Order: sequence, then structure tokens, then C-alpha cells
Amino acid sequence: MTMSVAWREETTQIGEVLRQSEKVLILEHEKPDGDSIGAGLGLALGMLFLGKNAILLSQDPHPSTYDFLPGRHLHIVVSDMKSEYGPFDAVVFLDCADRARAGAAVEFAKGDIVINIDHHVTNSMFGDINLVDPGASSTSELVFYLLKTMQVPITRNIAICLYTGIISDTGAFRYENTTSRTFAVASHLVDAGADPSRIANQLYECRTASFLLLLGKALQTLSLHHDGKVASVEITREMIRDAGSSFQETDGIVDYPRSIEGVEVALCFKERPDGIGVDVSFRSKCRVDVSKIAEALGGGGHPRAAGATITGSMEEAKDKVFSLLSKEQI
Amino acid sequence: MTMSVAWREETTQIGEVLRQSEKVLILEHEKPDGDSIGAGLGLALGMLFLGKNAILLSQDPHPSTYDFLPGRHLHIVVSDMKSEYGPFDAVVFLDCADRARAGAAVEFAKGDIVINIDHHVTNSMFGDINLVDPGASSTSELVFYLLKTMQVPITRNIAICLYTGIISDTGAFRYENTTSRTFAVASHLVDAGADPSRIANQLYECRTASFLLLLGKALQTLSLHHDGKVASVEITREMIRDAGSSFQETDGIVDYPRSIEGVEVALCFKERPDGIGVDVSFRSKCRVDVSKIAEALGGGGHPRAAGATITGSMEEAKDKVFSLLSKEQI
Repeated sequence: MTMSVAWREETTQIGEVLRQSEKVLILEHEKPDGDSIGAGLGLALGMLFLGKNAILLSQDPHPSTYDFLPGRHLHIVVSDMKSEYGPFDAVVFLDCADRARAGAAVEFAKGDIVINIDHHVTNSMFGDINLVDPGASSTSELVFYLLKTMQVPITRNIAICLYTGIISDTGAFRYENTTSRTFAVASHLVDAGADPSRIANQLYECRTASFLLLLGKALQTLSLHHDGKVASVEITREMIRDAGSSFQETDGIVDYPRSIEGVEVALCFKERPDGIGVDVSFRSKCRVDVSKIAEALGGGGHPRAAGATITGSMEEAKDKVFSLLSKEQI
Repeated sequence: MTMSVAWREETTQIGEVLRQSEKVLILEHEKPDGDSIGAGLGLALGMLFLGKNAILLSQDPHPSTYDFLPGRHLHIVVSDMKSEYGPFDAVVFLDCADRARAGAAVEFAKGDIVINIDHHVTNSMFGDINLVDPGASSTSELVFYLLKTMQVPITRNIAICLYTGIISDTGAFRYENTTSRTFAVASHLVDAGADPSRIANQLYECRTASFLLLLGKALQTLSLHHDGKVASVEITREMIRDAGSSFQETDGIVDYPRSIEGVEVALCFKERPDGIGVDVSFRSKCRVDVSKIAEALGGGGHPRAAGATITGSMEEAKDKVFSLLSKEQI
């Protein structure tokens, strides 16, 4: 397997530092996601193989979705961290564009050498050594190359962690960051023992029947507007109750109207359980900055994904949103 | 890229036959799916590159989902086929476990040599040369190796077709048939110009409103059996009509009951438009070999994905299937 020449120096340097270190602190970003967790556990397991004393630290706990990953005993949250666990010979930030991204875990980031491994284009290059490649699908992909350089064997457990990181950050090989190198790494990880269908099952095949019943009800309300460029669905409290579902399960339903061909803006109107009003989720595909529409309603978010709460009834909420949308160039 | 030694002889033989042929007929199975279509167009484009007169033939039209694929001008349906287009030097069956799987297209399968390229474990080895590997993710994966053996360059257009075939049959690298070799092939196809995010958008983000309305109706029928290990949905002709949908759009709906946590076997019962009876799609996650159940009903398929047609009413079809399932260890 060939490696980008650009990193050869960084991976070699990082490998030397880690080999010479006894105590290594690995930091994930706040609210860790699949890539941060997969890269963190994979690297921690690699350090364990080398006989290092490694701790994987994050401000927030790992979501239970990732409970199936090996190496969990190497992870602790900030509230369980003690300063006497340090000082560390090396501190590795994973998937953090800057130091602050590690949240409260930064407090413990005291070490001789700071290593920064990341794939965000906005990375501030804050490390003593920076292995930063925005062309990488994920930080897990970079950790794979680092471990290969260090000649750490990619065990089955390490492979499971890194594979999970890669599919989390690529949307299971569907996002634009998926490259031929991503597939080449996936091929190696599967050879090393990662099981694609088992891992995908763990991440994606854990819906509830009540969610599907609620989704079915929501889809019955599908309506198109603006010549098919806007699609909306609505979810009432009655629908949630009849499906035996919960308000939390409404997350992600907006992706269904978004998936219609030709739709640029998708909306999901959800009656809040507290009766205050209606939460609206906005998604867009390419052009419309939905965060501006959400902001005009007192909400916020990103250009492609935003939300707002509107007091009043479902009809009032829809009137307000469609009135704002009618002024947009969609 | 290394190749399974088991096929070296077959791919070499097939390559020699195709190079010596002037007129090649390539057959897809009835109701062609993404793998059959991707493998078919990929192979037809490869033959075109070699200056052959190649026709890709299927009983039924390609679903419009695949309209983005290159090489469509090489495909015709049986109703447009003329016997004077033949005779053919070679006839290639793709993704067909037996001759009958090509449906009415078999009538035109007259040629000096019959080549059988497939990955179904139930393949009857009906060809003069058989390139059959149940360990392959897809027929498209086998066509990739065949074209490599023949030293046909994998052009961007060929890569797009074969990549589409692979992700169709692996559920975007989520099914058990996904191997390290599948990823290695995907890596090559992306290097050759297949764009993973564009193709995934074409396949997964181009739903129709009518499909979502039909999905919504189908999900209302969701029912669980065998302590939640079996989930089923049903689709009547009336539901298809009310949703403004079509029978073709019922494909993939079985993946929704399959996605429920704890479900091992998922079923989708679909009233056929011709009134003959009910098509049943079977999916399983880990243990149950649904191809055996499908075979007991006169159908077939893979251990994790199979199908059968049952004459009679929806109730009769459900009775038959659940009666068979009650004898299974699920």
C-alpha cells in the first residue's frame, strides 16, 4: 500500500515520539462522534499493543450506539479523570480542528509533545507535529496509516474501530470525502477482521418498530410546494402517541422528504410534547441557506441543516414558514 | 491486484471467446436490478471498446433510477428485439442462476457459445463456460475481473456502471457479501473515475414522492412475529394506485422492516400487477437462509435476500409463508 509522500515525515515523526513515550493521552472532541471514537479506540489499542500506558479521554460520554466497539476500558470521561494520571509524554488530539474543540478535556492536555491528527480543512495546525490531511475521509483513515508506519499490527479489534470511524464519517461511503484510498483502507481493515455487515448492522439496523410506524404516518402527510422544490411532512402529538413512539424518534424524518429528486428544501413540522408549539426542521441540498430562514424564526443552525421553534398551532407554524419561503429564491 | 486462482481459467477462456466473437448478445435477468444492469452495461461498453457488435437485452425495461448510467444505447427490451439481429457468436447470461431467469429474452439466446457469469449459489452451471463465484459480492465484481483479464481498459463509463452494480447488490457495502475484495475493486473503480457520492445520490437521493407515499402506506401494515424476530409489511395494488406509484417502486421497501433492531427475517408481500398472485421478498440478517424458504415456494435467491411468486390472494400468500417460517429455527 502506497502512502501519500506528504505525510511520510509526519507519520514517521509521530511514530518515533509515540514509541519513545510511556504515558500517552489521547483526546477526542466534545460530543464525540463515530470517527472520533473509532480513531481514539483504534489508536489507544495500538498503544496498548506497544505496552504503553494510554488513556482515551473525552469531555462527553460515548453514545450507546458505539458500545459494541472493543477497547472501551481505555476510555474515560473528564469527570472521572484525575490529574495524577498525568503528566504525559505525549498528548494526541484526534479529529479536533483546534485545541478548544476537545472541550473540558483540554485541561488535562499537559505533555511534552502535542500531536494533532485531523482531517478538517479549518485545522489551526496547533500541534508540535501535525498530521492533517483534509483529503482524508476521516481521522480514522489517518490513524490507520500511522499505525501501519509504526508497524503496529492491525488487529481485528483495531480494524473494527477504524472501520467504524470511516463509515461514520463517510455516511457509509456515500459522502464526497470517499476516495479510492478510503476503499483501499477499508479493504485492508476487512482483511484484518472488520466485518462490514455486522458493523453496519450495529450502526444502521437498530431502528424501532415504533419509529417505522411514525415514519409511515409522517409520510402520509407529504406535500410538495414551489414546483416540487420544497417538500414537507408533519408530525402531530396524536401520531406519535398512536405509533407508540416518542418526540426523540422524530429526528431524521426530515431526511425522507429531502431525498426526493428535485427537492432543494425539506421541512418537518413536529408538535412539541410540551404543547408550546411546533419545532420545524429545515434541510437543503445545494443552494438555499436554511439557517437564515431558521434565524428569522428565532432558531439557527447550518446552511444545510437548521431548526426553529414556533409558538402556536401546526397551521400557524406552516403559515409562517411558507410565508418566509415564498420570499426565497428556491 | 491478485485474482482468485479458481477463475483464472474461466476468465481466460471467456476472454478468448469474446475476443474471437463479432456479435455478442448479453442477457440480463427479468426485472433487471442494479447489479444486472451495471454488469450488463459495463460488459457491453467493454465489448464496444473491442469493436464488437454487442446488444444488451432484457425482458423488462430498466427502472428509471438507472437512467444516469452510460451505455444505455446498447440496451434493448425483448419487444424491440428482432431475430435478424442474430445469430450471435456468443451469448452471455449475467446474474442468472439458470436460463429461465432471463425470462422471454431466452428466446433470442441462440449462439455458438453460452457464457454464464453469476454469483448465485444456486447457479445450475448451464453455460458452456461458467464464471460462477458465490463469494463475489455481485456479477459486476466478476465482470470487473473479466475485463481486467481481457486487458480492456476500465474507462470512467465502465467504472460508473460496475460501481453502481456493486453498491446495488451490497446495499452500499452493508450486506454480508461485502468482502475485502469488494472494497479493493471499488477502490480501482473510483480511481478509474466512478464518483461514490454522485452515484449514491443517484441511487438513494432520487426518490419520488409517490415512492415515499407508498412506503408510508406499507409501513402502516408493519407487523412483528416470532417474538419480534420476523417483521413483515404488505403492499396491495390499491395502495400502489392510491400513491400514484408503480410495482417497480416496491423494490427496497423490504429493507425497512429489516432495519428493526432484533429482526432476523424481513418480508414484503406485494400484489402483482398482473393479478396472478403475490410476490414475496425475503431478507435475513445473520442466521436464516431465506433462499431455502423462497425455493420451497418455487422462487430463489441468496441466503440473505430471496424472492418468490405465490399464486393466490394476499391472505393465502401470507398463510403459506408464515406456515413455512413456523418450521424454521429463527
